[in-house]
Amino acid sequence: MQDLKPSTPNSSPLTPILFLERASLVYGDSPSVVYGEDSPAFTWSQTHLRCLQLASSLSSLGIGPGHVASVIAPNVPAMYELHFAVPMSGAVLNCINTRLDARTVSVLLLHSESRILFVDVQSKGLVRDALSLLPSSHPCPFLVLIEDEVGYPSPASAVDVDFYSTYECLVARGDPEFEWIRPSSEWDPMILNYTSGTTSSPKGVVHCHRGIFLVTVNLLIDWDIPKQPVYLWTLPMFHANGWCFPWAMAAVGGVNVCIRKFDADIIHRLINAHRVTHMCGAPVVLNMITSLQKPLPHPVHIITSGAPPPAAVLCRTESLGFIVGHGYGLTETAGHVALCVWKGKWNVFPASERARLKARQGVRTTCFEKVEVVDPNTGISVKHDGKTQGEIVLHGGHLMLGYLKDPEGTARSMKNGYFYTGDVGVIHPDGYIEIKDRSKDVIISGGENLSSVEMETILYGHPAVKEVAVVARPDEYWGEMPCAFVSLKEGQKAPTEKEMIEYCRERMPRYMVPKTVVFRDELPKTSTGKIQKFILRELAKQLGPSRVSRM
Amino acid sequence: MQDLKPSTPNSSPLTPILFLERASLVYGDSPSVVYGEDSPAFTWSQTHLRCLQLASSLSSLGIGPGHVASVIAPNVPAMYELHFAVPMSGAVLNCINTRLDARTVSVLLLHSESRILFVDVQSKGLVRDALSLLPSSHPCPFLVLIEDEVGYPSPASAVDVDFYSTYECLVARGDPEFEWIRPSSEWDPMILNYTSGTTSSPKGVVHCHRGIFLVTVNLLIDWDIPKQPVYLWTLPMFHANGWCFPWAMAAVGGVNVCIRKFDADIIHRLINAHRVTHMCGAPVVLNMITSLQKPLPHPVHIITSGAPPPAAVLCRTESLGFIVGHGYGLTETAGHVALCVWKGKWNVFPASERARLKARQGVRTTCFEKVEVVDPNTGISVKHDGKTQGEIVLHGGHLMLGYLKDPEGTARSMKNGYFYTGDVGVIHPDGYIEIKDRSKDVIISGGENLSSVEMETILYGHPAVKEVAVVARPDEYWGEMPCAFVSLKEGQKAPTEKEMIEYCRERMPRYMVPKTVVFRDELPKTSTGKIQKFILRELAKQLGPSRVSRM
Repeated sequence: MQDLKPSTPNSSPLTPILFLERASLVYGDSPSVVYGEDSPAFTWSQTHLRCLQLASSLSSLGIGPGHVASVIAPNVPAMYELHFAVPMSGAVLNCINTRLDARTVSVLLLHSESRILFVDVQSKGLVRDALSLLPSSHPCPFLVLIEDEVGYPSPASAVDVDFYSTYECLVARGDPEFEWIRPSSEWDPMILNYTSGTTSSPKGVVHCHRGIFLVTVNLLIDWDIPKQPVYLWTLPMFHANGWCFPWAMAAVGGVNVCIRKFDADIIHRLINAHRVTHMCGAPVVLNMITSLQKPLPHPVHIITSGAPPPAAVLCRTESLGFIVGHGYGLTETAGHVALCVWKGKWNVFPASERARLKARQGVRTTCFEKVEVVDPNTGISVKHDGKTQGEIVLHGGHLMLGYLKDPEGTARSMKNGYFYTGDVGVIHPDGYIEIKDRSKDVIISGGENLSSVEMETILYGHPAVKEVAVVARPDEYWGEMPCAFVSLKEGQKAPTEKEMIEYCRERMPRYMVPKTVVFRDELPKTSTGKIQKFILRELAKQLGPSRVSRM
Repeated sequence: MQDLKPSTPNSSPLTPILFLERASLVYGDSPSVVYGEDSPAFTWSQTHLRCLQLASSLSSLGIGPGHVASVIAPNVPAMYELHFAVPMSGAVLNCINTRLDARTVSVLLLHSESRILFVDVQSKGLVRDALSLLPSSHPCPFLVLIEDEVGYPSPASAVDVDFYSTYECLVARGDPEFEWIRPSSEWDPMILNYTSGTTSSPKGVVHCHRGIFLVTVNLLIDWDIPKQPVYLWTLPMFHANGWCFPWAMAAVGGVNVCIRKFDADIIHRLINAHRVTHMCGAPVVLNMITSLQKPLPHPVHIITSGAPPPAAVLCRTESLGFIVGHGYGLTETAGHVALCVWKGKWNVFPASERARLKARQGVRTTCFEKVEVVDPNTGISVKHDGKTQGEIVLHGGHLMLGYLKDPEGTARSMKNGYFYTGDVGVIHPDGYIEIKDRSKDVIISGGENLSSVEMETILYGHPAVKEVAVVARPDEYWGEMPCAFVSLKEGQKAPTEKEMIEYCRERMPRYMVPKTVVFRDELPKTSTGKIQKFILRELAKQLGPSRVSRM
């Protein structure tokens, strides 16, 4: 039996690119990508041909395996196509956040050694500034302009960048019969994503074809994605490739409703116009769409992730007709590794209890192997008591290959057979994990580890609170004390700091009550909607050390 | 970028065994396996523990990697558990068809070098006879009796076989804390299936963990299997592992409704009793369940495969409330590699046209790579015209590793990057393939290739026909002529041979009309319901050469 080995017919590299080939065969005349409300749609057979043409053009520019092709764009159709076209040329796709500053963009271009940069018309200024910061010795990447007459008409001369070509020209001159470059191994790199870094400096996460294939089938199975869904692109594709939905939509022949930018009104209009069935968003997006308090015309599945969603936000979202799924993943895992699998028996619980259960990150996804919570010192699993905190560690087929040009960083995070997430969590008696904090966000007060998430969850329950983040403020006696930054809903009576503290006192243990509450119009956020705690931590430091009497 | 390599956290072998571990975590207190109408159900956490215990017992018997563990049993709970327990011991699972004769069973036991044989109580006599045919020098495998007090109570002394133990004893003495034996590579063998062989002698198809993993996720995605479905086991698990539904049900935490034997009445009763949502069966099963002409109490998905389903049978089945899916696969592919993806725009067609479209085998499944129809001599793809016939060839991740101890057979079928199926098909202009015949079943009359499937499809349209198979009868002048074997429905006026031929004459080209029609009460079938054409071909030969005047 041992003489039976893999052979050519059965051992092609796993890759999600095949989903596009199949979509053009099975769903050839069905819509693939629509943009805005009125624009004509592409079909899957058009999308397939356009990607082949673009891959062919990249290839004739000498771009191929081992090279990085970067793009800086919002969720426009070109951004979708690049998720296939770049890997089909053999190159590695690197999506850059449009809201970064010029200095960071230049650092990423340098670090990734990008050979080509696709630039959305709206980011021309940003790219010009970023390029000016590159060392003069550094070869400038090919610059390709993504025009957008519909969504962002602008005079060609508005910003002066010397583009090599436009996106549509590259597509037009490509060969639709191009034989796309298959990975020589399923472990070949396919994707490079720099972490948005709520706290630390950017790191280049590299994923291979096999990993992206696995996370995509995982996603289809776990979220029960049906055939030909209508997917609204509220999650940026530059954010961890939109949790791999570009490839998933090709696998099921769905419609990608692309949008340049959105607010609650636009989302509601598009849900209506296209009969949207699925969308994704960080909890901050849930917050935004519920602000209208407008019920949906039909049920819409929304998957949230990226930060523990406050139970109050979950409640509000579901009351409008959304079916909320909650998952957990990192840039390093390409997509979800855990999700809060819902149990029928929980339906009888009151809404707040249901929301509390759903706010947990849950159990490992179907195709992922292990999600554990361990004592970071001993590596031993913590008790399943919902109380003992430890670090969340992961083991499974769609963990990244590693960090680009950072063997030390890779070795630090991938050790003992696990990837160490830096997230602090507990395991409940039913085996569901729940994040208590990012390691860096834990507040250590008098030797006690305080979970900022726990305090935030309680503060979100206050009727006037729109957003809240609790960080450590240095304290002369206790080391650190919790400091809450709060933004308030419009049209509600604004509470005082004292009233907020009183509210907490009634609901949390004394040692946990924030000693400072700072009201802000807006909390600082990353481009993907994560609250930037490191900025708030700085602000809290500037308040100076608090002086709290002994308890 | 090339220095990033797979590492321990991300490169564990893909294996479907992990689905069971997860089911016990996520669906631990939900039913996993029920047997019959009244028996208490196991839960997923019980099934998980029982499989660990059994694997541990196998291990203590010295059974492990490289060894074959065989089972001869119908769809009883033990059969389900063995699909996990055997691979968890590191051994390879070999399911033997309960309807084989003793000689064939002894051949399989010898060829596979089985270390252990699990024997359902009903197959004791068969096994005793098979063992008596083994050479005396051959070591006898451990014999384990699967008792069944509920479904098949029998006096222990009825048949005299010297069993080493009973199934339940092995489970009971096993260690539930057993660390199951993970494959050292995802290419390690996991499954051995002997093809039922409608035409040729048995061949041992070997599948690896990776292949079974891939076919299982493929199945979940392509058939849109929801979470916690209720699956009725009408397809034998000994038939290509029930198209891999044992592992799929663990992945989604479904209920396995096991049954020893069934007829149309039992199926209807169980659908009602357990609110069955999904089942599978060869077209002959569809035929059987529609014979009652009893509408379903609720919609049930039924997946059919294994032989091209006659359009008339599809029509009848759907009219009763079944939602029929049609796929194509072989023992060598572990499960489906093509399925007839349904298009919404076809819904407007009349029932007969819908059935004609659905009777096609369709397009490749989501995770499989290529299903082509090629000229077997040149290897070049045939025209997509729905007419030009060629051999169906396959390329993808869940093709078998090869045939056991048969490097020539393996090399003959796996060549030029493809697996050659021996099936003759066409590709329609919309890219959907349709099987016209098994190569061996083609009737070559006067140099013309006649498709037996085409003739059978027309004959199934006759109101009195229950089952039909057309084979070649030697002919003095034309070489071969079609000969139809027909069984008739009860309670219908029986047509004469002349009337049947007249019926064909009105509906098919003259050269295609069967010149002989033989009526039989039953057509000979394999245990999985495939009509055994090689037997009919023998019978046709015994009729002697036909003498047909020149046309």
